[in-house]
Amino acid sequence: MDFSAQDHLFMAQALRKAQGGRYLSTPNPFVGCVLVRDGVLIGEGHTQVAGGDHAEIQALHDCRRRGNDPRGATAYVTLEPCAHYGRTPPCALRLVEAGVVRVVAAISDPFPEVAGRGLALLREAGITAEVGLMAGEARALHHGFLSRVERGRPWVVAKIGASLDGRTALASGESKWITGEAARADVQHLRARACAIITGVQTVLADDPLLTVRRLDGEPWTLVRQPLRVVLDSRLRTPPTVQMLKAPGKTLFVWSGENTDELNARQAALEAEGAETLWLGGADGRVDLPGLLNKLAERGINTALVEAGGRLNGAFLMAGLVDELVLYQAPVLLGGSARSLAEFHLERLADRPHALETERVAVGEDLRWTLRYTPY
Amino acid sequence: MDFSAQDHLFMAQALRKAQGGRYLSTPNPFVGCVLVRDGVLIGEGHTQVAGGDHAEIQALHDCRRRGNDPRGATAYVTLEPCAHYGRTPPCALRLVEAGVVRVVAAISDPFPEVAGRGLALLREAGITAEVGLMAGEARALHHGFLSRVERGRPWVVAKIGASLDGRTALASGESKWITGEAARADVQHLRARACAIITGVQTVLADDPLLTVRRLDGEPWTLVRQPLRVVLDSRLRTPPTVQMLKAPGKTLFVWSGENTDELNARQAALEAEGAETLWLGGADGRVDLPGLLNKLAERGINTALVEAGGRLNGAFLMAGLVDELVLYQAPVLLGGSARSLAEFHLERLADRPHALETERVAVGEDLRWTLRYTPY
Repeated sequence: MDFSAQDHLFMAQALRKAQGGRYLSTPNPFVGCVLVRDGVLIGEGHTQVAGGDHAEIQALHDCRRRGNDPRGATAYVTLEPCAHYGRTPPCALRLVEAGVVRVVAAISDPFPEVAGRGLALLREAGITAEVGLMAGEARALHHGFLSRVERGRPWVVAKIGASLDGRTALASGESKWITGEAARADVQHLRARACAIITGVQTVLADDPLLTVRRLDGEPWTLVRQPLRVVLDSRLRTPPTVQMLKAPGKTLFVWSGENTDELNARQAALEAEGAETLWLGGADGRVDLPGLLNKLAERGINTALVEAGGRLNGAFLMAGLVDELVLYQAPVLLGGSARSLAEFHLERLADRPHALETERVAVGEDLRWTLRYTPY
Repeated sequence: MDFSAQDHLFMAQALRKAQGGRYLSTPNPFVGCVLVRDGVLIGEGHTQVAGGDHAEIQALHDCRRRGNDPRGATAYVTLEPCAHYGRTPPCALRLVEAGVVRVVAAISDPFPEVAGRGLALLREAGITAEVGLMAGEARALHHGFLSRVERGRPWVVAKIGASLDGRTALASGESKWITGEAARADVQHLRARACAIITGVQTVLADDPLLTVRRLDGEPWTLVRQPLRVVLDSRLRTPPTVQMLKAPGKTLFVWSGENTDELNARQAALEAEGAETLWLGGADGRVDLPGLLNKLAERGINTALVEAGGRLNGAFLMAGLVDELVLYQAPVLLGGSARSLAEFHLERLADRPHALETERVAVGEDLRWTLRYTPY
């Protein structure tokens, strides 16, 4: 398929526009749509909260609000328009009704109820429907949604705050604060983008964290949802008095111990405080991590953020379940007795996890590394 | 003292020019000198190898070589001209003889045989002698020489190559290579600038390193000296067959064990291979590190580069003897079982060493951090 420079320009705008939905749309992908007629942008939109408008509908609204007529327009969408009645009627149909004459999608939608049917519906209606423009960029944008649908598990980001010598806390447990305020504010964006935050019972017992999104400096955004908190707690040792059970949003405790009266009582106590619980034992008596990710995908979790200690970080890394590592490094040394950011063992250097892509960004006094291990 | 914009311009040039001597001049400071008449640079020079010309003499040569006459000129020097007969006659006298009418020094020379006498000699000869222009920059430039003269110990740089989680080798000892080729080439510059390289017996036994300067990519420079290799080897366990004893340059073994026949035999075997040895026991039976630095300063060592393992790095850091840390970080994780870059223990976060200045530079795939702990 040959696309023009103008096609690229407007698809790039659709990709940018899509970002407006990145804190809102889960479990839906945050799609962007741009309507163009005679080389002029006449409307644009992005996916709203689940149950709200998809990008195409928002773009049509925006078009009319501006006093424009969508008839004869080309629609650029970052993902194939849907063709099924879900929470909303099919977008492909709405584009047909609006008189759009050409639809360019960056990628087709792997979701089984769409998967090419959106494009087919458009073509049957006599609309030129093309796919594949800036597909790489669109896959990068929609990596969470694609991961859930194509792999049956969320895109997993492990977030770590550490010293230059890779330490997250002193031997005493003291860890407040190693990284600076700017880094901690930046983490709020990671949380807001995540559908779930996974942590371990050790972190809960040590820090009693809220794991909520609290602020998004500089973002014109109002919080509409909190990520699901997922606590890996084999023997349900978390006391029902922890702060996070009083915080906005849901908490899920995943356990793997033997089904004793004592554990059942703890389970009941947590549930009485509004928590969900899930038993998911692995071969070694610990929580089955790949199984957990499958369960989270079934719940519509596109992206999961792991905010845990060295042991859980090491387990996720060694199981090959970390798609992206985000490491905030403070320019300090804490010494060999302090706690490691990831507990695992390599026999040979050649076995070390290899990152496909590395990015470094200064965040206040600290440095944020992003290492991507999985192709988009 | 008020200095003009033109004064700043030419002193900046003298500071730049000085860099030409940074691999050559030790134990002398690498001074830069610029001669200016009627606002025009008529000659410039930097200190040569020890016993060769000082910067002022080079600048006078350069001036005449260009067909210029130094009479009536102003000399800008990064350090007060010397006033004593050392390996060379006093530069202050040579400036007088050349007919220079004004001398501007960035800083005075703390070396006891100079310390103001250079400026006094000039003034007695009727020359305007000023000091203090761009003094901060000159202190930063001459930090090694100033450290030796003012503190009686070299400026100590600890160089470490590590993973993102602060590991320098796997548990097995495997460490070739964690950082990339560009980082390893960059280390050659650190070595070339150093007057001595300090390492531990563990590193020698594990890697049998040469610790020589081997290449300086992109530098118009010919190697004239190798840094002194200093091996901390309490019980003289280094076999006399190690590679470094056949490499160009000198090697000094520093030991602290009891003076037994066995150790004396080892000492004799190392000395038979051309090594020097020095007994320097501390209170705890280990080598006395502050004492070692004093001894090195007495030998004219301005800057020492520590290239060691986690234990020695930790000992230097905890003793407050590291003035600057240069850390090359490779974007990989090696896990909690791998070796720490610095073995030390902190009771409280508040006790962590605080860097005055932090610099980050990309070196190939790796990142070079420079943390300066000591003010210049």
